[in-house]
Amino acid sequence: MDDRTQALAQLTTPAVVVDLDKVERNIRRHQDYANAHGLKLRPHIKTHKLPRIAEMQLRAGAIGITCQKVSEAEAMVAGMPQIKDVLITYNILGAEKLERLAALAQKVRLSVVADNETVVAGLSRRFAGEAKPLAVLVECDTGAHRCGVATPEDAAALAQVIAASPGLTFGGLMTYPLPDGAAAVQDFMTRAKALIEAKGVAVPVITSGGTPSMAKAGDAPVTTEYRAGTYVYNDRSLVARGACTWDDCALTVLATVVSVPAANRAIIDAGSKTLTSDLLGLQGYGHVLGRDDIRIDQLSEEHGRLMSDGPIDLKVGDQVRVVPNHACVVTNMVDQVYLTRAGDVITTAPVVARGRVT
Amino acid sequence: MDDRTQALAQLTTPAVVVDLDKVERNIRRHQDYANAHGLKLRPHIKTHKLPRIAEMQLRAGAIGITCQKVSEAEAMVAGMPQIKDVLITYNILGAEKLERLAALAQKVRLSVVADNETVVAGLSRRFAGEAKPLAVLVECDTGAHRCGVATPEDAAALAQVIAASPGLTFGGLMTYPLPDGAAAVQDFMTRAKALIEAKGVAVPVITSGGTPSMAKAGDAPVTTEYRAGTYVYNDRSLVARGACTWDDCALTVLATVVSVPAANRAIIDAGSKTLTSDLLGLQGYGHVLGRDDIRIDQLSEEHGRLMSDGPIDLKVGDQVRVVPNHACVVTNMVDQVYLTRAGDVITTAPVVARGRVT
Repeated sequence: MDDRTQALAQLTTPAVVVDLDKVERNIRRHQDYANAHGLKLRPHIKTHKLPRIAEMQLRAGAIGITCQKVSEAEAMVAGMPQIKDVLITYNILGAEKLERLAALAQKVRLSVVADNETVVAGLSRRFAGEAKPLAVLVECDTGAHRCGVATPEDAAALAQVIAASPGLTFGGLMTYPLPDGAAAVQDFMTRAKALIEAKGVAVPVITSGGTPSMAKAGDAPVTTEYRAGTYVYNDRSLVARGACTWDDCALTVLATVVSVPAANRAIIDAGSKTLTSDLLGLQGYGHVLGRDDIRIDQLSEEHGRLMSDGPIDLKVGDQVRVVPNHACVVTNMVDQVYLTRAGDVITTAPVVARGRVT
Repeated sequence: MDDRTQALAQLTTPAVVVDLDKVERNIRRHQDYANAHGLKLRPHIKTHKLPRIAEMQLRAGAIGITCQKVSEAEAMVAGMPQIKDVLITYNILGAEKLERLAALAQKVRLSVVADNETVVAGLSRRFAGEAKPLAVLVECDTGAHRCGVATPEDAAALAQVIAASPGLTFGGLMTYPLPDGAAAVQDFMTRAKALIEAKGVAVPVITSGGTPSMAKAGDAPVTTEYRAGTYVYNDRSLVARGACTWDDCALTVLATVVSVPAANRAIIDAGSKTLTSDLLGLQGYGHVLGRDDIRIDQLSEEHGRLMSDGPIDLKVGDQVRVVPNHACVVTNMVDQVYLTRAGDVITTAPVVARGRVT
């Protein structure tokens, strides 16, 4: 089934379907926003995990890609030689990962982050002998309370350590902000930048991220780069936030009704092994396109339960298209996705960076 | 890294680790229970997805395996020729799946379920010309309100349709009960069996399932077969139900602390791409062995957030072992698991039935 048109209705379900026309429109819209605000866009590939979509993003003006794990970066670079600039936004630890990181640094302009001295020391030990130093950014906690140094003073102190470490260069500041965190980013980063520059160290990059907060990224003008992932597909969580419409959702799960056991209930062949249990604060596990009355109120691994307050009005064998709560985690569930143009399936694409957790 | 001992501490994390000694003990214990209650055990492979563990279950006395999707069954049968008897507990629809089902029926004693006439008609059309008829069981809803006919009368009517369908034989009755559903199973199945037998049709199999309800499976003596999956690994949800102890949990996720950004907070390199977002009614996303004070209160794809009311007492680079909420979904996230004996990694095993959703 390579590169030929196939009606959606013929696909074996459940199937994850990606509308490339919508993808292109989403890429254009967000690249335009970034350009208008003087932000360099560095898309996070966790949403698509597909070299060919990374290439579409680069062609539209992205300066490189963001990955979360070394193995994701390896898969993307192996799949698309046009990828020449990779930021891995993770604290990398352990001899085996550091070896792979060093090999990757031979192939692309590579940068990573750190929020503690143990990670910096490990990176420095491995890269001390290398011809090309590794750029290390300081991860800053601007309110999300996941990773990150807690204060601008801590950021400045760690920047000094990096700048003084053999094999490393200080690459700048990075944060994954709260969805409405632009003001906090502006405040933290402005102070950290001033403290670091006062020590005579340059801050080449200040990078923030997240599709939910991208529409307000311009409110943190100290930012030079932006990392967003989900915008390329969008999903139910972003519709709920008002960031996009159903028509902007490029990824859907095509599912078949396998049972209609009651007047108000139907069961589809997509469960948590396709849609995942991610709620992102929502009720239910996805939106059935064209059926606002239906709630997907329960998932087991291979069953999705559709409930309506009125008649469910579906019969066994019907197909439905579901916009998942969270697009990024859905692409991680399947070995391949179906790519469409103008509503026709044009090809399948192996999700080469799926399951890359190390 | 094949078949040689490797210290757990040397594994690249996150890593899904399976303790074969505990697996063997869990298999023995549940097979003994089934034997003592006159139940034939037909383990659901969704938990492990590994041919070699199916083989351990068969050697211990299991009569065959249960799968949820055709593609799972294909992967298991291809991986282990000892598998000769497969029940697929799913309404199977669509020409492509029916072809694969027919091919599978050439290799093993195969049975499937149906809860509606559309599915029965599709199965009959495909199997009408086959030398060997396909056994079809009626799926019954004994309270879980997922799939299944709603009443014993409906079950008897569908059994008649199956018995009269070319290419099919009536294989019996199947249910996936509520965790405390033994009495409901006994009541429904006794009535359905009597109605079907009154029409001169035999009911060769009555199969119930689920690890949570297995300890009370003997309370539904009408049952002849039992399908359980999770018992082979156990997980946090089963500990919470009192079905087992932490020491019975054969599957753990080995993770590394990558950040300790605050006195009461640490971040591990296992997030929802390893532990999954399945809650199964619990608070938090897993149990850190030996640390009852820690809650995994938040997951993103590659980060797990550990919070303690007191000092977190972990440092960057430390390893922890996490018992996930739900073992079955964790094995679906990774391409391989590490198998241990006496605490040593003896080999890796590809999770051959991972991601088989069709």
